[in-house]
Amino acid sequence: MNDFVPSELLDEKTLPPYLSAIPNVAERLGGHSSGWRVREIGDGNVNYVFAVHGPAGRVCVKQAMPYVRVSGESWPLTPRRAYYEYRALVEHGRHVPARLPEVLHHDSRMNLLVTEHLSPHVVLREGLRHGNRYPHLADHLAQYLVGSLFHTSDLAHAAIDKRPLVALFSGNHEMTQIMEDMIFTEIYHEHGRNRWTSPQLDDTVARLRDDVDLKVAVARLKVRYLTCTEALLHGDLHTGSILVTEDDTRVFDQEFACYGPIGFDVGTLLAHLLIGYFAQDGPTVADPERTDRQTRLLQVVEDVWTGFARGWAAAWEQPRQGDAYPRVLFDDADVLAGERERHLAGIFTDSVGFCGAEIIRRIIGMAHVAELRAIESDDARARCEQRCLRLATHLLKHPHAHRTIRDLTDAARTARLTTS
Amino acid sequence: MNDFVPSELLDEKTLPPYLSAIPNVAERLGGHSSGWRVREIGDGNVNYVFAVHGPAGRVCVKQAMPYVRVSGESWPLTPRRAYYEYRALVEHGRHVPARLPEVLHHDSRMNLLVTEHLSPHVVLREGLRHGNRYPHLADHLAQYLVGSLFHTSDLAHAAIDKRPLVALFSGNHEMTQIMEDMIFTEIYHEHGRNRWTSPQLDDTVARLRDDVDLKVAVARLKVRYLTCTEALLHGDLHTGSILVTEDDTRVFDQEFACYGPIGFDVGTLLAHLLIGYFAQDGPTVADPERTDRQTRLLQVVEDVWTGFARGWAAAWEQPRQGDAYPRVLFDDADVLAGERERHLAGIFTDSVGFCGAEIIRRIIGMAHVAELRAIESDDARARCEQRCLRLATHLLKHPHAHRTIRDLTDAARTARLTTS
Repeated sequence: MNDFVPSELLDEKTLPPYLSAIPNVAERLGGHSSGWRVREIGDGNVNYVFAVHGPAGRVCVKQAMPYVRVSGESWPLTPRRAYYEYRALVEHGRHVPARLPEVLHHDSRMNLLVTEHLSPHVVLREGLRHGNRYPHLADHLAQYLVGSLFHTSDLAHAAIDKRPLVALFSGNHEMTQIMEDMIFTEIYHEHGRNRWTSPQLDDTVARLRDDVDLKVAVARLKVRYLTCTEALLHGDLHTGSILVTEDDTRVFDQEFACYGPIGFDVGTLLAHLLIGYFAQDGPTVADPERTDRQTRLLQVVEDVWTGFARGWAAAWEQPRQGDAYPRVLFDDADVLAGERERHLAGIFTDSVGFCGAEIIRRIIGMAHVAELRAIESDDARARCEQRCLRLATHLLKHPHAHRTIRDLTDAARTARLTTS
Repeated sequence: MNDFVPSELLDEKTLPPYLSAIPNVAERLGGHSSGWRVREIGDGNVNYVFAVHGPAGRVCVKQAMPYVRVSGESWPLTPRRAYYEYRALVEHGRHVPARLPEVLHHDSRMNLLVTEHLSPHVVLREGLRHGNRYPHLADHLAQYLVGSLFHTSDLAHAAIDKRPLVALFSGNHEMTQIMEDMIFTEIYHEHGRNRWTSPQLDDTVARLRDDVDLKVAVARLKVRYLTCTEALLHGDLHTGSILVTEDDTRVFDQEFACYGPIGFDVGTLLAHLLIGYFAQDGPTVADPERTDRQTRLLQVVEDVWTGFARGWAAAWEQPRQGDAYPRVLFDDADVLAGERERHLAGIFTDSVGFCGAEIIRRIIGMAHVAELRAIESDDARARCEQRCLRLATHLLKHPHAHRTIRDLTDAARTARLTTS
């Protein structure tokens, strides 16, 4: 494995000899590398991803090049993102390994990560779009959020151990800058990367850019993202970063990992579930299942938050090692019950705001989502997108009007019915 | 200079040959090193500090050993604190060099810092205690606060450059842990390092420790300190970290530097000015100047905040490079005036809270202040301290009752008169 030039892009031919030199990977695959089958499976636009099959098992290989894959060298991007993805999997893996792929190998010179290959998992976004049922999904996502966020926060993690990790993940600033630009800034002014369903949304986009209250709300959220190190975030927790089966849920693609406000991850996840809800209205043909699917999607939204809040409260009540609200000062845990609820209410308010910001940027920014893109009719797609934008604008401008998760789903129902 | 073993403690004999190998220092001192006079001037308990005089000029040498000086090796302390002090001087020095000592040399192997020697400066705490007048003090302190805090915040500093500095200063976690423990935690329960004027304050200390609302207020501030990276703080901005003459003001001792909430520095500074105000009542002999001195001290408190707020607003209006509230989204600066005032109000609320927390820890924790210690009568000292604690408790439990700096100084006047 030392025969490779740094950052040489591996492929179907060069991967087997490379992997054969990594004992635990070779063992997982079994047999001789000449018998391993390599298949490119990356459906993303950024990295190279391969599934490797051997007689004994399978692994997944992800390699980052110093540019965005679809753009080539015209869009440079730090290949160190593979390192931060690896480190986030390690840190989150201490707390919630069941909801993550198992890490088998990381090569910092090659910017390459080997994990278990999850099969027969599908990307959650696609599963939801097709109306699949995932009875454990909300529980699993709540478990993931509590495990990854509570346990990396100051409630659970002593500052003497957390601050060095804040230092480490602050190094991922080339990736966080992308979020700073794409979510909070460039979509609110003219920028070459923006695109939207045109001309249908032209007026709406112009109105958003003239809406000072909206832009101030987004600017406040940006300051939260820039200055708050509450917990180690996934950093891009959309439904395309989650793999599911009927019984399993795993979260991957942590390359935007950073310490940030807890509501950023929660809000991003809720945003994509809500976009999925609105996108169901895209096909113009009659579909007797549509109402059921939409009902289920809003139920997932409600159950994710409810499960998260319940899990968070339970974790808060356990013996904790963190420096926040130390038990040595509060021997009667009851006195902190109000503080715990206040803390959760703050996370919810943040989540509502980041949810709104994420929805907007997925409709008028650079990175759009598959379920809306898949709507063939521009008019039908624009109608769904208008409803998304209506909800998102409302969330951003009136965050405190949404105090419960039911307020949020009610706002989604209202936004869906207001225009047709 | 490479003849020295790492962390060897330099002294009157070894310093001249060491310094003679540093060209800019040798030049500053002039002549031959055999003619340089070395004098220990450290009045602190933590480091070794020397003034070195040569025919052409003077320098100040500060060396950190891997322990607290007064405690010896029984209290280990990272000697890397000298590095963070150096880096904070460099970063703050980009913005407000006039209010800092000039850095001449840093030796990371020796944990040693050489700066200009400020003379005839005295420590501000002592100057104020003796009633000296500093007509430019409030302006200078406001200038320092704006320069060091605004310009290292996301308002002025692009995230792509700020995040690496957050990473760097997160490495100072052994020092920030001391603050986490001493300000926010250990004084609110039994801990061997705590001490107070006893038995006079015994009941008060017991009441503080039973006051759940107070401890919750302090716990919230601790979470701010743990999770907020608004700006690069001095980290321990008391009146013993400031050197003054009638015309000059310089801030030193940045070894607790970290990214944190802006109100932490502002509140700490105000706390020590207010302690100085209450300590004036210590001497029981009649003193016709006392009222004037106290009036002047509260005027400094008011002028520091007013100058800071004015300077902050002015800096906000200048062309800025930061990612917060980017000008590209707000072409009409007027629309941000309300946001600017909201932002300042948030800093003020934080400052009020941190001010209260700092006052308390300086009276019932480990590190006391000279102006209170100097009061010989235990009863007289306890009376001053009770007033300090009364104000501090009020600030912590009713932060929003103090919306203007005049509210804060009025609260101080009231606390002084309530007990006698």
